[in-house]
Amino acid sequence: MALDDLTERLATRFQPIRDRSAWLVEPLNEADAAVQSTPDASPAKWHLAHTSWFFETFVLIPNLPGYCHFHPLFGYLFNSYYDAVGARWTRSQRGLLTRPTLEEVLVYRRHVDNAMAELLASDVSREVAALILLGLHHEQQHQELLLTDILSLFARNPLCPAWHKELAMPAGKAAAFCWVECAGGIAEIGNDGKGFAFDCETPRHRVLLQDYALANRAVTCGEWIDFMADGGYRTASLWLADGWTASISEGWQCPAYWQRQGDDWYEMTLGGLRLVNREAPVSQVSFYEADAFAAWRGARLPTEAEWESAAASQTQQITNDDRTLAPKPQSGEGLTGLFTDVWEWTASSFRPYPGFHIPPGAVGEYNGKFMSGQMVMRGGSCVTPSSHTRATYRNFFQPEKRWQFSGLRLARTL
Amino acid sequence: MALDDLTERLATRFQPIRDRSAWLVEPLNEADAAVQSTPDASPAKWHLAHTSWFFETFVLIPNLPGYCHFHPLFGYLFNSYYDAVGARWTRSQRGLLTRPTLEEVLVYRRHVDNAMAELLASDVSREVAALILLGLHHEQQHQELLLTDILSLFARNPLCPAWHKELAMPAGKAAAFCWVECAGGIAEIGNDGKGFAFDCETPRHRVLLQDYALANRAVTCGEWIDFMADGGYRTASLWLADGWTASISEGWQCPAYWQRQGDDWYEMTLGGLRLVNREAPVSQVSFYEADAFAAWRGARLPTEAEWESAAASQTQQITNDDRTLAPKPQSGEGLTGLFTDVWEWTASSFRPYPGFHIPPGAVGEYNGKFMSGQMVMRGGSCVTPSSHTRATYRNFFQPEKRWQFSGLRLARTL
Amino acid sequence: MALDDLTERLATRFQPIRDRSAWLVEPLNEADAAVQSTPDASPAKWHLAHTSWFFETFVLIPNLPGYCHFHPLFGYLFNSYYDAVGARWTRSQRGLLTRPTLEEVLVYRRHVDNAMAELLASDVSREVAALILLGLHHEQQHQELLLTDILSLFARNPLCPAWHKELAMPAGKAAAFCWVECAGGIAEIGNDGKGFAFDCETPRHRVLLQDYALANRAVTCGEWIDFMADGGYRTASLWLADGWTASISEGWQCPAYWQRQGDDWYEMTLGGLRLVNREAPVSQVSFYEADAFAAWRGARLPTEAEWESAAASQTQQITNDDRTLAPKPQSGEGLTGLFTDVWEWTASSFRPYPGFHIPPGAVGEYNGKFMSGQMVMRGGSCVTPSSHTRATYRNFFQPEKRWQFSGLRLARTL
Amino acid sequence: MALDDLTERLATRFQPIRDRSAWLVEPLNEADAAVQSTPDASPAKWHLAHTSWFFETFVLIPNLPGYCHFHPLFGYLFNSYYDAVGARWTRSQRGLLTRPTLEEVLVYRRHVDNAMAELLASDVSREVAALILLGLHHEQQHQELLLTDILSLFARNPLCPAWHKELAMPAGKAAAFCWVECAGGIAEIGNDGKGFAFDCETPRHRVLLQDYALANRAVTCGEWIDFMADGGYRTASLWLADGWTASISEGWQCPAYWQRQGDDWYEMTLGGLRLVNREAPVSQVSFYEADAFAAWRGARLPTEAEWESAAASQTQQITNDDRTLAPKPQSGEGLTGLFTDVWEWTASSFRPYPGFHIPPGAVGEYNGKFMSGQMVMRGGSCVTPSSHTRATYRNFFQPEKRWQFSGLRLARTL
Repeated sequence: MALDDLTERLATRFQPIRDRSAWLVEPLNEADAAVQSTPDASPAKWHLAHTSWFFETFVLIPNLPGYCHFHPLFGYLFNSYYDAVGARWTRSQRGLLTRPTLEEVLVYRRHVDNAMAELLASDVSREVAALILLGLHHEQQHQELLLTDILSLFARNPLCPAWHKELAMPAGKAAAFCWVECAGGIAEIGNDGKGFAFDCETPRHRVLLQDYALANRAVTCGEWIDFMADGGYRTASLWLADGWTASISEGWQCPAYWQRQGDDWYEMTLGGLRLVNREAPVSQVSFYEADAFAAWRGARLPTEAEWESAAASQTQQITNDDRTLAPKPQSGEGLTGLFTDVWEWTASSFRPYPGFHIPPGAVGEYNGKFMSGQMVMRGGSCVTPSSHTRATYRNFFQPEKRWQFSGLRLARTL
Repeated sequence: MALDDLTERLATRFQPIRDRSAWLVEPLNEADAAVQSTPDASPAKWHLAHTSWFFETFVLIPNLPGYCHFHPLFGYLFNSYYDAVGARWTRSQRGLLTRPTLEEVLVYRRHVDNAMAELLASDVSREVAALILLGLHHEQQHQELLLTDILSLFARNPLCPAWHKELAMPAGKAAAFCWVECAGGIAEIGNDGKGFAFDCETPRHRVLLQDYALANRAVTCGEWIDFMADGGYRTASLWLADGWTASISEGWQCPAYWQRQGDDWYEMTLGGLRLVNREAPVSQVSFYEADAFAAWRGARLPTEAEWESAAASQTQQITNDDRTLAPKPQSGEGLTGLFTDVWEWTASSFRPYPGFHIPPGAVGEYNGKFMSGQMVMRGGSCVTPSSHTRATYRNFFQPEKRWQFSGLRLARTL
Repeated sequence: MALDDLTERLATRFQPIRDRSAWLVEPLNEADAAVQSTPDASPAKWHLAHTSWFFETFVLIPNLPGYCHFHPLFGYLFNSYYDAVGARWTRSQRGLLTRPTLEEVLVYRRHVDNAMAELLASDVSREVAALILLGLHHEQQHQELLLTDILSLFARNPLCPAWHKELAMPAGKAAAFCWVECAGGIAEIGNDGKGFAFDCETPRHRVLLQDYALANRAVTCGEWIDFMADGGYRTASLWLADGWTASISEGWQCPAYWQRQGDDWYEMTLGGLRLVNREAPVSQVSFYEADAFAAWRGARLPTEAEWESAAASQTQQITNDDRTLAPKPQSGEGLTGLFTDVWEWTASSFRPYPGFHIPPGAVGEYNGKFMSGQMVMRGGSCVTPSSHTRATYRNFFQPEKRWQFSGLRLARTL
Repeated sequence: MALDDLTERLATRFQPIRDRSAWLVEPLNEADAAVQSTPDASPAKWHLAHTSWFFETFVLIPNLPGYCHFHPLFGYLFNSYYDAVGARWTRSQRGLLTRPTLEEVLVYRRHVDNAMAELLASDVSREVAALILLGLHHEQQHQELLLTDILSLFARNPLCPAWHKELAMPAGKAAAFCWVECAGGIAEIGNDGKGFAFDCETPRHRVLLQDYALANRAVTCGEWIDFMADGGYRTASLWLADGWTASISEGWQCPAYWQRQGDDWYEMTLGGLRLVNREAPVSQVSFYEADAFAAWRGARLPTEAEWESAAASQTQQITNDDRTLAPKPQSGEGLTGLFTDVWEWTASSFRPYPGFHIPPGAVGEYNGKFMSGQMVMRGGSCVTPSSHTRATYRNFFQPEKRWQFSGLRLARTL
């Protein structure tokens, strides 16, 4: 893309994306926005401040002459994990920061937005434009996390609060299960240099695939109930050893936000406690559970290369859907729902692509240093901003984590 | 006291004491009132709700015909530790309850207050009157905890927020240190049946004391700085073994809320970060530190019997002071400041008095079951309501705890 | 005692006491003597070496000219907790020391014994004689610990090994339960300067007692089975809060070394797995359990002053019994079994006596620094050397510990 | 291989391999053989018993009519992790089993060996022969672990014991560092059905490689000292985030068994404490350290496919070397030392090969259930039996583990 086009596009997109973050916290009170439900999750207010700190630290301070720090301590409070940038507040204690207030953080955001508007009105170099684009995708990542973290908080509250009480749960029927066959051979995966991508999606490279098949849709809640009824959570032979240990020590009996009432299963959603929809994709399951489910079905999880190769032709699906903020039943022909409802655990560890290099500078800490101990998820979920999804996207979490909209799609070798 | 008098007095005192709790949270925002700084501390909102639950559960439900539960889950959420009353929310997770909101809790308080007004306007038995009086002292205990817990939260925030920014720090000079000699012999301690007392202050009984002396005032911050300068925190021989282990593992170098800036020591107070006042009593130190300090001075901590015996004649001091919400320099003749600035660690473990019996019913869990692993503190602090102090009062905490206004007064055997 | 008499008596007693330690490990193989069952317990070999290190460090090096260190690292390896003497091996890792071998440790013992014989043949000062006497009582303490620690190891082994397979379990009937009344008033407790005592037994001082009664004998296993059958381990209201928490988290259902087989209870003893003897005193119970049992019986534990005052006239019992290495049924008139079968938990925290001072020098760390967080046990057990018991003895352990021969005797206020 | 040939070969190999296990413990005393240095390691005696239990459980009981269990509890005590076979003793408590004695375990071994001799003298099916072969490779795995675990124990002992004091440390010079270029393209890896392989080495399959280069030899101790001197352990930007966290919390400053004395580095070896040989491959480093070292050198670790593809032509190296029980300087032309000195960490997570299926039966738990959270190591070490190495071998450990003979070889993409 020509630099002028890119800058113009950034100028157009910047404020709407930023505004959406603030919109997400509108239903929250000051406490909802401040509390940290677990060390993994962050307070909503922290997400709002951290994403602004990102622009301030990596874009404004080096590039906008005369830019004035908003507050001398905010760099310390809202740095997430960038060692090169300096000391930082302990992650597990983000919830202690009842000050600054939400209003003060929103003022901070406007301070940064105003400075960014000034910068975007000027000539910016390609490097700076790339950093701004990175900052916007970073903001979208945190929009998703903000919602998953709020749900994590509300799901622990016996009063079952809702982000929006009136949120409609998607209805409809899931497509009947079938296998979609995919030809093996040499495929190319990874970002081809067109369009935005995170560092870890590069370089594009060739992989060798055997013939394989993917399920036409994600595993549904109804299928998961069958797994539970068949003793899936009590059958050691289905599980990876670490998964079995985790399931015992954590007492897993069902997806993270499910609870039983009489004969029915309910789950905590952004709309509060709702009856589980058997047609919708199952969500909030760990890699270990996904792997055990696949074993129970005599199948396996797809590798990320299989997933991307199959998904590459499906990207027209992504563009114009409305996010429903809850997984919706996946219907239609062929591979469906790849980008829209739940992140899909793959069989692949999050490791560097052949030829991957960590970029220079502090943003080199963006992804590269997390390439151990995590599994790749592909696709996108009901809380992922649409413009933030793409076939090459590599999301990743530790295999025991269950607070994301994480589900699975079955695969098998032909 | 005649029952009519007692009831009338309760009716007069009830609402002012209840109102003070609500007044204490006025400077707080919704998040300040919801967050739990450590598992030991509770959110301010939780204190407000729990004290109301106490009246609802032990007074209203059994005694006010037609009383209507405010909310079916509040019993579960706001029970503290009463096994006999049923299941309860995990203590360490009180800070997850961003709902009910502070406003909803205040509505709950008014609901309870209205019902209590109705009850107090009726004939209440002596037993019920005793429970109401217990409830009011319980409320006052939580008023103190509410302030120590808010300070605990703010002291962990690098922005150093204040409960009230304009809070005046008490000034003046401490009295020169001297020993006040006390005659030994047989003394009586414990509640004599007149006036309110918690169960653990009974029965009144005789103890045998040797001749002893108490310091005329509490140890000051200036004296504590001398202890630090002399290597007190680095000299194992001054410390109890468990205390030394705790000081190493926790990295203790000074009282809990102190921090050094250049050559000066500052401390977090309810008025924010202030210069340490060398004349004021030291506070936020553990029993272990207090014991090591006493060893460094060649002295010891007083036993609770010594303390009470000496304090028994001093109670006129208590009545009409204004609490300053920060320890103030203790001046004057004789034993001074026994009830007004810091709780004073004693050498006594919190164990039952000879002849103590746990009262029947759920309130039997009030104190008796905590009689192991804790040390007695005596007196009262700058955040203790004046009408809540008395010479027989037995406060108690684990020996490593440092978040209360806890200091010490030296003693020695003559 | 005149110094000559004392020295002569030491010369007579020294080697027999030392030899008994070595005799205790004769049934053990090299591994039995090396392994550490829990961080609380120590390997038998470590006990053998540490008691020798005590004589070497505190007696020989300062007082025997030309004494030659046995090994340059043994001071580091076998110091227990004396900060003043230097660095030391981590307590929880004593079991990693498969070298030195048991034989090497026995050679070390002979090296120390030979040097001690030389010293004892010379003129020793009263101070040195006192240290030697302390060393012998220290050795006897560790003889008891050696046996309790071996039992702790064997009790964790599904093969149920025995220290001596042929060890006879004491038989007979327990005396019928009755109360023995004791007059209150002013009593004296503590060491009177005659005979050996540890620092913590001093100074002798007056205490004021109310009239009280003690059970004629310790609680039996049969009575404990009744407690279990009545739901004692499932009734929160009987327990101290910390005790209840411990019982839940540790899963306590019976004394530490009991196990059920069909309808019968068995227990691990120094003679291997044996049927529980309902007539014998219950053992291996924590203070928390003892306290709950007393509550269940509507009684309480005695204070240490009550215990000592009652026991002071019973010391003739101690002298000439043979230790059976398992608690034996307590029969006879009046207070029986005070010193012979199980240590008896008291209601008293282990705190300094009025006027107590820590002795100068490294041996000042012997007891004083442990005076927090522990409860006093009185009497003596089936594995305590007879010459090591006395009415003033203050043994102490944390209230949750269960690996000693610890039981209880009921008390009540008259 | 024809069944007769296989059976005959098993009959020839069986006892020598079994005897070597017993030979390995000859220098140990009863305690050395019983203690467990860390939860990861097992006692030598446990290895001896467990490998016998493997034959007893999977071979003898199902296939030798009239075979008589040696001991009813040994199945419980010596099962490692086979859920399908029944309950088992807790792994972290293997060191508590001072009984059975080493002699009893050796008797158990002879009991099993005698029964196996009887079975091997009969006609055995191909399935049984395969299980016996698996059992022998299993025994060889544990021979390696027995030595690494003994070293782990001795390395924690300040007395620095040796397995054999006279063990000669290999001398010589390492080859000068150079890159050996390897052509990319489609390669085949995995077992081709000839010769023994564990389940996880199958199925053989095609992979696509880019052109790459491997270092001619493993990284040496001298190079590691350079890394340390250049601040490698203090430079966060070289490390994976999890690795940096581990290095801080564990205090890593050098390989696991190194210690500094003055200006020199020493390391614990099976021959006791020896001067570090700068020419020998570095060992006892974690994946995290290996990865950071590679980053420091501007290189990377090889993938397991790259490693195997390059190593496939080198297997003639393996056969006739004598194991030196310490890494020896790697000299010679081309790729050298692939199988002989240290296991080499790769960049690959231990995940299933395309088309991998878990075998039926209890031995299906052999490898498959461990395919998460671990990194692949390739080659073989100075304590790996020669007949146990092969180019397709996939060894694996968690990335933070440091007690194996684990080093690294650099790689880069051309």
